[in-house]
Amino acid sequence: MTPMITPVLLCGGSGTRLWPLSRKSYPKQFVPLVGEETLFQASAKRLSGRASDLAFAAPLVLTNSDFRFIVTEQLMAIGIDPGAILIEPEGRNTAPAILAAALHAVATDPEAVLLIAPSDHVVPDAEAFRAAVARGLGAVAQGDLVTFGITPDRPETGYGYLELASAPDASGAPVKLKRFVEKPDAARAAEMLAEGSFLWNAGIFLTRARDLLAAFETHAAGLMAPVTAALAEAKPDLGFLRLAPGPWSEAPDISIDYAVMEKAPNLSVVPFTAAWSDLGGWDAVWRESGPDAQGVVTSNGAIAIDCENTLLRSDSDRLEVVGIGLKNVMAVAMNDAVLVADMSRAQDVKLAVEALKKKGAAQATHFPKDHRPWGWFESLVVGNRFQVKRILVHPGAALSLQSHFHRSEHWIVVEGTARVTVDDKVTLVTENQSVYLPLGCVHRMENPGRVPMVLIEVQTGAYVGEDDIVRYEDVYART
Amino acid sequence: MTPMITPVLLCGGSGTRLWPLSRKSYPKQFVPLVGEETLFQASAKRLSGRASDLAFAAPLVLTNSDFRFIVTEQLMAIGIDPGAILIEPEGRNTAPAILAAALHAVATDPEAVLLIAPSDHVVPDAEAFRAAVARGLGAVAQGDLVTFGITPDRPETGYGYLELASAPDASGAPVKLKRFVEKPDAARAAEMLAEGSFLWNAGIFLTRARDLLAAFETHAAGLMAPVTAALAEAKPDLGFLRLAPGPWSEAPDISIDYAVMEKAPNLSVVPFTAAWSDLGGWDAVWRESGPDAQGVVTSNGAIAIDCENTLLRSDSDRLEVVGIGLKNVMAVAMNDAVLVADMSRAQDVKLAVEALKKKGAAQATHFPKDHRPWGWFESLVVGNRFQVKRILVHPGAALSLQSHFHRSEHWIVVEGTARVTVDDKVTLVTENQSVYLPLGCVHRMENPGRVPMVLIEVQTGAYVGEDDIVRYEDVYART
Repeated sequence: MTPMITPVLLCGGSGTRLWPLSRKSYPKQFVPLVGEETLFQASAKRLSGRASDLAFAAPLVLTNSDFRFIVTEQLMAIGIDPGAILIEPEGRNTAPAILAAALHAVATDPEAVLLIAPSDHVVPDAEAFRAAVARGLGAVAQGDLVTFGITPDRPETGYGYLELASAPDASGAPVKLKRFVEKPDAARAAEMLAEGSFLWNAGIFLTRARDLLAAFETHAAGLMAPVTAALAEAKPDLGFLRLAPGPWSEAPDISIDYAVMEKAPNLSVVPFTAAWSDLGGWDAVWRESGPDAQGVVTSNGAIAIDCENTLLRSDSDRLEVVGIGLKNVMAVAMNDAVLVADMSRAQDVKLAVEALKKKGAAQATHFPKDHRPWGWFESLVVGNRFQVKRILVHPGAALSLQSHFHRSEHWIVVEGTARVTVDDKVTLVTENQSVYLPLGCVHRMENPGRVPMVLIEVQTGAYVGEDDIVRYEDVYART
Repeated sequence: MTPMITPVLLCGGSGTRLWPLSRKSYPKQFVPLVGEETLFQASAKRLSGRASDLAFAAPLVLTNSDFRFIVTEQLMAIGIDPGAILIEPEGRNTAPAILAAALHAVATDPEAVLLIAPSDHVVPDAEAFRAAVARGLGAVAQGDLVTFGITPDRPETGYGYLELASAPDASGAPVKLKRFVEKPDAARAAEMLAEGSFLWNAGIFLTRARDLLAAFETHAAGLMAPVTAALAEAKPDLGFLRLAPGPWSEAPDISIDYAVMEKAPNLSVVPFTAAWSDLGGWDAVWRESGPDAQGVVTSNGAIAIDCENTLLRSDSDRLEVVGIGLKNVMAVAMNDAVLVADMSRAQDVKLAVEALKKKGAAQATHFPKDHRPWGWFESLVVGNRFQVKRILVHPGAALSLQSHFHRSEHWIVVEGTARVTVDDKVTLVTENQSVYLPLGCVHRMENPGRVPMVLIEVQTGAYVGEDDIVRYEDVYART
């Protein structure tokens, strides 16, 4: 029988090292950083389907409330049906999230095998990765916790390492772990690269759920009670499972490595020799995007003239980006923000975010496209007493029934058909038709059709902030 | 009697070295590059008003057809009434334009004194400049053609030089010119800087119109007939004077230096010791913008972290720009284009424009705000079968009576009041009101009010290009 593996996709986190593309409101796993798909989509696809020696079940997704509709939208777009989407009430690092996933899995299948993976890594060769997973199954059957070690190709100081009990052989068979090694300095990294029995710690785990639970019981017993309670008291909500905030808040904020893996004696490492990156900075994006002979990477029509070792990204169709005579520079331009940095300062991009926070710029944390349960909107222009937005509503979706104290709105449908409620009246508004929503009226916009509906909203009034809203009814429970 | 001087402002040219801020459709003289005013406005103000020892008459402006309404708009904004605006049918370099100005001036005042100046220079100390002009008047009274020489503060290779017959004295009195010197190499520039009798050629001239005409007769007689005819057959048009294209096209395309100044024996130079720049590249903008102790210049809230000798410009309120760890870099970001270049490559910005032209990008030549006789518009978003524009109409201005074959339009007024004609019906539409213009209707938009009118236009249809327009009537003679 082909063993069935349940992927556990972790996608609740948000970093700032890839600002401006990655922001708190829309972090890097949901962005197409390398290639056409987002990292989350690529991760879900890599761990899906069936091969000769293994098969993946529907994934278990761990995320937070803000990202839940991004998760469903992105999975829908690639035709993957999640087994469950667990909502973490707040980020408590990886240990509580993984424990919740393991508890959820054993509840339906006591023999469940989990492949636990972050969803923001790049692994170009999905077949090679699935073969590595298959090589780990024997150790799993013997009760081991299996982790994956990436064969280093440079003296990287940005990753932790796994020291193996012996150098891996050509078969790629699992090797017992000797110990975890913290991020090294450059000299030590070079030594480890030369020695051959040190691999990068990719933070990916393959294990039976019950073996992992046993390891938690032994090494991190303090997590069991709060996380068990958070799952027992979890509330279903529109297909999501919301872990209970009360008990969840009592779970220690700790990583799976510190809580369990560094203490457990039964760890094996499957060596993985193909390419892998956690895209921990723009320098990594540059490296993984396939620089040309001059070390230049351009995207979306950006133009590099006499540049070397340079990344030039335009992430907007409306924006032309040109670099001239640059060396070791990365420039990333979006509609609302531009980052230009020396390549050696990739790890300092967080300073940009801090500086923007300090001056109160929305760009520090907010993405120009604001994703909502029903679709997304973006502000096209904010003027004196007016704002213009583009709004997309998914087929079948509906905004809340709402009213505003300070603004009137004009809606002009430019794609698809809207069903519009204004006080007691319901009308269909289609491409090239408009409707006026006077200040104070109770209104709702829905897309009753089979294709996305796009409309332009022109707001006028003394105040056009998002918080001027009274919600009367909401299918997404936001009233 | 205080001598009266007529400024001749040359503003018909367009360069690419300050792309993306300076574009063919909206060149650098009309942009606020340093300070709040545009270079053209600052030039007009510098050569206006009355001091103890001289007074300026209304300026004579030489420009081309595309820029004529920008000229009137920018002069109106600073309260300067032009004496005349001459439209060059095509660019023929400076000699024909200056000759046309001289001929125009003597027609009303045979003794007219002209101060001929490009309108894209930076001269921070306007008082010092006017004092230099006053110092030249004595030589002018003796029939000299007076030019202005800038005391060099560095071995600049980007400018031509004026070699004086003797080193200037502290009084700043005019000195006879020995000869013009072409742009030097670095070694020769350093020698000239040390010698003390070489000044930068600023391309600014003070002369009686009749002395200049005599010099043209002697040294460039071939220009007299075509330019005289172009002026004689010129057509007044809404306050502009359009030089006749036929004869104009026969005038040699030549600079005033080559045609006249380098040949004339009666040249004096007034030394000018205060700051001056022709802003010939982004490095010059950086230098003139007052770099801080680290050599950093930021504008419009751009953030520099650990940068040196770096220019970071955001020319949009919607765009945050952050630089980290940059050295000798200039980054200029606009809503539709971003330039990032090594400071040493300032003169190669034209390569960016060429590359963009090659790929057919509008950003090569077109400004995001499109200035028209009646105001301006900008495209906010272009989608599949729709486009959204912001349109500003000046008080009293009117768009043409027009119709479209491929699009309908919705207009929503967000500031001021519009008078809207749709077929036979005329209505007033004020803030927060809208009007619908079905495909094929004959319509016009006017601003009958006293304040600017802003509206949002949502176009829908199979084709939303600017050339889908039939004009029936136009106060700006564009039918």
